[in-house]
Amino acid sequence: MISLPRDFAPSVDLYELTMVDAYLREGLTEPSVFSLFVRRLPQGRNFLVACGLEDALEALQNLSFPGESISYLSSLNLFSDSLLDWLRAFRFQGDVFAIPEGTCVFPDEPLLEVVAPLPQAQLVETLVMNQLHVPTVAASKAARMVLAAGARRLWDFGLRRTHGIDAGLKVARAAYLAGFDSTSNVLAGQRYGIPVVGTMAHSYVLAHGDELSAFRAFVRAFPTATLLVDTYDTLGGVRNVIRLAKELDKDFKVKGVRLDSGDLVVLAAKARQLLDSAGLTRVEIFASSGIDEKEILRFAEVQAPIAGFGVGASLAVSHDAPNLDMAYKLVAYAGQGRMKLSPEKENLPMQKQVFRVSRGSRTERDILASHEERLEGKPLLVQFLSAGRRLSPAVTLEGVRERVRSELAQLPEEIRSLDTPSRPFHVELSPKLAALRQRLASELSGRPLPSGDHT
Amino acid sequence: MISLPRDFAPSVDLYELTMVDAYLREGLTEPSVFSLFVRRLPQGRNFLVACGLEDALEALQNLSFPGESISYLSSLNLFSDSLLDWLRAFRFQGDVFAIPEGTCVFPDEPLLEVVAPLPQAQLVETLVMNQLHVPTVAASKAARMVLAAGARRLWDFGLRRTHGIDAGLKVARAAYLAGFDSTSNVLAGQRYGIPVVGTMAHSYVLAHGDELSAFRAFVRAFPTATLLVDTYDTLGGVRNVIRLAKELDKDFKVKGVRLDSGDLVVLAAKARQLLDSAGLTRVEIFASSGIDEKEILRFAEVQAPIAGFGVGASLAVSHDAPNLDMAYKLVAYAGQGRMKLSPEKENLPMQKQVFRVSRGSRTERDILASHEERLEGKPLLVQFLSAGRRLSPAVTLEGVRERVRSELAQLPEEIRSLDTPSRPFHVELSPKLAALRQRLASELSGRPLPSGDHT
Repeated sequence: MISLPRDFAPSVDLYELTMVDAYLREGLTEPSVFSLFVRRLPQGRNFLVACGLEDALEALQNLSFPGESISYLSSLNLFSDSLLDWLRAFRFQGDVFAIPEGTCVFPDEPLLEVVAPLPQAQLVETLVMNQLHVPTVAASKAARMVLAAGARRLWDFGLRRTHGIDAGLKVARAAYLAGFDSTSNVLAGQRYGIPVVGTMAHSYVLAHGDELSAFRAFVRAFPTATLLVDTYDTLGGVRNVIRLAKELDKDFKVKGVRLDSGDLVVLAAKARQLLDSAGLTRVEIFASSGIDEKEILRFAEVQAPIAGFGVGASLAVSHDAPNLDMAYKLVAYAGQGRMKLSPEKENLPMQKQVFRVSRGSRTERDILASHEERLEGKPLLVQFLSAGRRLSPAVTLEGVRERVRSELAQLPEEIRSLDTPSRPFHVELSPKLAALRQRLASELSGRPLPSGDHT
Repeated sequence: MISLPRDFAPSVDLYELTMVDAYLREGLTEPSVFSLFVRRLPQGRNFLVACGLEDALEALQNLSFPGESISYLSSLNLFSDSLLDWLRAFRFQGDVFAIPEGTCVFPDEPLLEVVAPLPQAQLVETLVMNQLHVPTVAASKAARMVLAAGARRLWDFGLRRTHGIDAGLKVARAAYLAGFDSTSNVLAGQRYGIPVVGTMAHSYVLAHGDELSAFRAFVRAFPTATLLVDTYDTLGGVRNVIRLAKELDKDFKVKGVRLDSGDLVVLAAKARQLLDSAGLTRVEIFASSGIDEKEILRFAEVQAPIAGFGVGASLAVSHDAPNLDMAYKLVAYAGQGRMKLSPEKENLPMQKQVFRVSRGSRTERDILASHEERLEGKPLLVQFLSAGRRLSPAVTLEGVRERVRSELAQLPEEIRSLDTPSRPFHVELSPKLAALRQRLASELSGRPLPSGDHT
């Protein structure tokens, strides 16, 4: 499961290199802990689905600075020779603790923590964020569609709109993990084993000019195809499918029709009627064009006879929330807690653990605690790398899909809903972590922190 | 300028392969023309900046199906052997006409047209869209910031939020072409020669605990650094910079301070006052955190003493408009015009040219015409590939930057503005193209098209 091409290896921001250079000069190489978390949920979102860990771990293990990078960096006349030597020899040797892919997560909960000598942990800041960000964005968006769709199928049609090919792979994978059925992205099929799906484009019909001839030819090559019916007129297209069924009689094996424009609720109902009247009850109706979780829910509410959806832009870029307010912050150095006090950008000190407390089969609340605490509930953070080496084999996609399924099923009803809940999911600080935070903040600012963020 | 890693080569959607398979079986291999255009502007946008052509051309020229792809495709038990043979031997051999990078473009104008045998042109649909989409999204967003910023500098800090590393490179390049000054993305610096920039992170200050010690150490390594002052308290941080200046006296060469939280307008004014009172008039103030074109304009309007901005998420994902309604449609086959009639998804038939008409130094309107027409104004579409081979050398970044500068300067005042204009930029159809469209539509639907979309 190679996700980060070698060409992309030395992906860092410049300030990581300058800071590392300074750390090395100063001998600031003690163990540090960095915590990666999301500060707040995007508007209208009630939860996130952690995703991208496999890519992040692989990116960490592959991070290196080949000769051409070193030459380039040297040409900037900015860095010390000792930094360049250090980079030339660099292999990531830190420990990584993380919440497994497919777990529902909430603000302030560390998705991932890096425990490593300060220069190592600092160097990977941007890379780790970059690799966790878009998969988590996409999985969180896709999960909402999965919840809205119920038994209806979901197809990822996003590759043409994703931000590059890399994003296309990450989105296809994240959507499948969240519960999508398949993807149109052939490379994602090849790389991850995700089932691939496709129908036909308008250009196919246009190339033939006559729609019935186009359908006839396509079905000759792909008898069980799903036919796109809206090139000229949706119901006219459906009538051509019916004509074809009569022509082919027992050899007619078309699985479905796809509607891609117009009022899809109205057209689906009429198409269903036409197909049923012609005895084609087994031909399913699929819809695409402008599909997002709210549209999916609207179709479900009117019980539109739609078997599934092809989802493009809204998944591909998560159009209502294309980014998360994700941070990667130093929380401990040489065994001592660290926190910043910048307004609305505080962080919680020390390496952490998250305990998820359930009541019966319902997730009830989370407790954010110090790493060494042992509290009620299930600890979410697990160690994945030790001194840079993988502790467990890579996950299987089916394993993560199963985790998402069960995570979503266990969320409180209000949090699973597309509506804003009466109050957000409850995340509290352990008394120990709360006290530590309070003590550090007073030491730093000379005044107690306002309480109330976490109660 | 390698932009598409070889690992990403066979990026297609499944339906492209099934359609090509069917075309080959049917012998539908005559020349076709596909037109790539944006159907409508995102809300609140008045123009787009075409970008990504270099990546798209390179992706086309590199597209191939290595052995492992063929094995994978064969394992799907879906395709004919002749398709697999055809893919194995595939090299793109079409002609490509496009609007050069850095040109302002408007809805319905072809950013790119592919003229090739139908299977070739169909196969590259998703790849070409994917490669042009995010650069055009990013350049269009960045251009708005450039217009708002005037003389203030703009730094791309987006890599941690871009959708993958590939997107990080594309966004850094697009932003630089649109007029940004530099990027924090080291790989973009290495690959494209874009100037790189960086300050320092909160973690650097936190690792030292004491802010003044951190500043002292960082400046020892990087005397002309820009110091981040808001880790604990912004004005306290500025006072520490002033202390350091007194300590170092003539050796103090710090270029700037960066504010990253709080009310940046208020804090910039106070920071300026403190610095000026201490005689540090040459220390510039930079702002980051939540910066977008509207914030930039607000700073400009109150004449905030800010020399430049670090821009993250709003550029990285173009958060108000992360995707464009981009289409790639068959417009001619075997010399005959093609168009679809799906509601709100029509297209204009035949290969095209766009003529840009200016009055003095102001762009006035565009005329969408058939490819062979010769009308007033400057033709925008240029041939870049002939039978798959590049006709002109790759562009230089500085050349494209200069084009963007002049294009933005020539836009009508209302279109350059961040506000919605009283009417959109005027794009008209040539009488010949309008007549052709009307004739084709009536032939297809048996009724005349409603007029008025293009007048």
